[in-house]
Amino acid sequence: MRHQVVIIGGGPSGLLLGQLLHGIGVDAVILERKTRDYVLSRNRAGVLERGMLDLMKQAGIDSRAHAEGLPHDGTLIAYEGDMFRVDLAGHAGHSIMVYGQTEVTRDLYDARDSIDAVTHFEVSNVVINGADTDQPSVSFDKGGQSHRIECDYVAGCDGFHGVSRQTIPENLRQEFEKVYPFGWLGILSETPPVNHELIYANSPRGFALCSMRSPTLSRYYIQCSMADTVEDWSDEAFWTELKRRLPDDVAAQLVTGPSIEKSIAPLRSFVTEPMRWGRLFLCGDAAHIVPPTGAKGLNTAASDVHYLFQGLKAWYQDKNPEGLDQYSEKALARVWKAERFSWWFSSLMHRFPDQSEFDLRMQKAELDFLRSNDAAQKAMAENYVGLPY
Amino acid sequence: MRHQVVIIGGGPSGLLLGQLLHGIGVDAVILERKTRDYVLSRNRAGVLERGMLDLMKQAGIDSRAHAEGLPHDGTLIAYEGDMFRVDLAGHAGHSIMVYGQTEVTRDLYDARDSIDAVTHFEVSNVVINGADTDQPSVSFDKGGQSHRIECDYVAGCDGFHGVSRQTIPENLRQEFEKVYPFGWLGILSETPPVNHELIYANSPRGFALCSMRSPTLSRYYIQCSMADTVEDWSDEAFWTELKRRLPDDVAAQLVTGPSIEKSIAPLRSFVTEPMRWGRLFLCGDAAHIVPPTGAKGLNTAASDVHYLFQGLKAWYQDKNPEGLDQYSEKALARVWKAERFSWWFSSLMHRFPDQSEFDLRMQKAELDFLRSNDAAQKAMAENYVGLPY
Repeated sequence: MRHQVVIIGGGPSGLLLGQLLHGIGVDAVILERKTRDYVLSRNRAGVLERGMLDLMKQAGIDSRAHAEGLPHDGTLIAYEGDMFRVDLAGHAGHSIMVYGQTEVTRDLYDARDSIDAVTHFEVSNVVINGADTDQPSVSFDKGGQSHRIECDYVAGCDGFHGVSRQTIPENLRQEFEKVYPFGWLGILSETPPVNHELIYANSPRGFALCSMRSPTLSRYYIQCSMADTVEDWSDEAFWTELKRRLPDDVAAQLVTGPSIEKSIAPLRSFVTEPMRWGRLFLCGDAAHIVPPTGAKGLNTAASDVHYLFQGLKAWYQDKNPEGLDQYSEKALARVWKAERFSWWFSSLMHRFPDQSEFDLRMQKAELDFLRSNDAAQKAMAENYVGLPY
Repeated sequence: MRHQVVIIGGGPSGLLLGQLLHGIGVDAVILERKTRDYVLSRNRAGVLERGMLDLMKQAGIDSRAHAEGLPHDGTLIAYEGDMFRVDLAGHAGHSIMVYGQTEVTRDLYDARDSIDAVTHFEVSNVVINGADTDQPSVSFDKGGQSHRIECDYVAGCDGFHGVSRQTIPENLRQEFEKVYPFGWLGILSETPPVNHELIYANSPRGFALCSMRSPTLSRYYIQCSMADTVEDWSDEAFWTELKRRLPDDVAAQLVTGPSIEKSIAPLRSFVTEPMRWGRLFLCGDAAHIVPPTGAKGLNTAASDVHYLFQGLKAWYQDKNPEGLDQYSEKALARVWKAERFSWWFSSLMHRFPDQSEFDLRMQKAELDFLRSNDAAQKAMAENYVGLPY
């Protein structure tokens, strides 16, 4: 078998890249370890930057997002029993779009169904061969048989636990990591969101987030101990704790109901450098993880896809290697900015076990400053809606 | 003896308050533990915010500062061998004035000489009596004799180690503190400054600052271990280390010479709450300390003096107690903002012994963001030139 590009990973990054490449006539096969149903059952963030929406438009899959998504012109920050609003559109000239990552993935699979492109599901033992040579290939097992695909390039879109990053020799990689000493307990419930814009809450009991997927589907999170399990948290206990972390008037308006999903996720900052080794290019979670505060995960994967797509396009259309040669540098420059924002926003909003009374006052002083200072709000808004590629 | 106000501490805060009170006909005595010459020999920061300059103007002592001071419209930040400039005047509409604290103190003493006001030097065993009653008094020893001054109010301008803060019962005070795990080794030298604006440098070897007192008097600092002593640092060792922390082109222009002063200072963030107990009001270092990065020490003392002066003025002129009643709250609101800025700027520019590789990248990402983002520069500039009172 031969394809021009092998994309490892059938999540939104890999699918988006595949769709964009198809648009310029480049043949990209996708290998996915799980089934399509499994991929579509994963619940992830749901805030899209304009950059991601632009890419979806280029890929021709943005119509449902624009029809069903909820554009948000602002976001709310609660602390000390009160709230203030950051006017995203006013400060940054753009809004963000609330539209679930699962829906993006579904749109991408629907689009892929209608094009002539190969997707292999339930592959195992994926091995990237000769990434640092001119003749890379990817071998894998599927249905009890071994396969091998010769290709020009490999896109590693297979997430934090995937094989792509591990393929780069350890002595050529530098990894940066911060593990936060808490997790997020999140629930989905078929209730109307408590507010039409997101509410990020810093409270003495820990962080809380009021988010949504649609006007009838709410997504709420509370900071929890990583020692907790979902069994420790009944729906009632969750709602009670959430209300205690929100301003009284918000808590009073909260509509509760049975959870239809409940999970605990860790918070981690992670970056590997470089993001390219020969003909292998890492994209998204394969190369970097952000804590979910500010929803930069999918959006940062999207900026990688943008840079990689531009590089491949320049190569296939004009034999110009510059974009591919500069991929790692360009992608990482924006990755670190997203890492900084996610780290800053996480640090600002959570309670940390080792915080001194002085540290707590610095958090409060920073929130006070953000509330009172236009320039600080503008800097935040520009990050929140997404820095330009 | 009876005076309307007793000011404890003959440093710039106490002197400035005394001068302002004299201007509205309020009689304020100053008690100082040391001699005038000793006070004038202390070397301190030399960057004045417009708020401080406004107060100096109100006190009638700003003419020499305007004649001899160096207005700075911008400041430079160096890292990774390069520099960028933050346009203070452009972003914040104001510049700062480089004029030594020692010179401010000298101007204040010169002004005090020409008015009818009592200053007691070399006092000891200062005790503030009945601060929580309607009849406070201050007793002290001088020249082997004991004295007692009855008064309406006591202004505690006697610094971090002074008696004023300690007079407030421990159970009524809350203290917040962060001690930074390094110090600043500073020298004065009779050499022309390497640059006409300040250069703050983040380097792998630690922080450095190129500052000045005048066109012929330079002030340089390098981050050092608090285990170091000035004897560990010959002039030659200092200059060599300073050059290694500056961009090559800056280091090449550095004019070195013998130091005429050399000292090591710790870095500390400290705040006590409240800043008022009955008829005792804390001002400046008596209530709060900032690390010197960004030069907020004297300027934050000045904002206290402003709020206290406004409160006393409203009381003596209109019998309106509001300003005095709100003193602690108003002063602290601005103090915490200055604390936040000084902590942020210190955290951004120094190397910390416990920094992980990820933490170092966050520092670099924040510097990259500051360099590239107008709103972030504006937020910094507004803090640097001084937030409004």
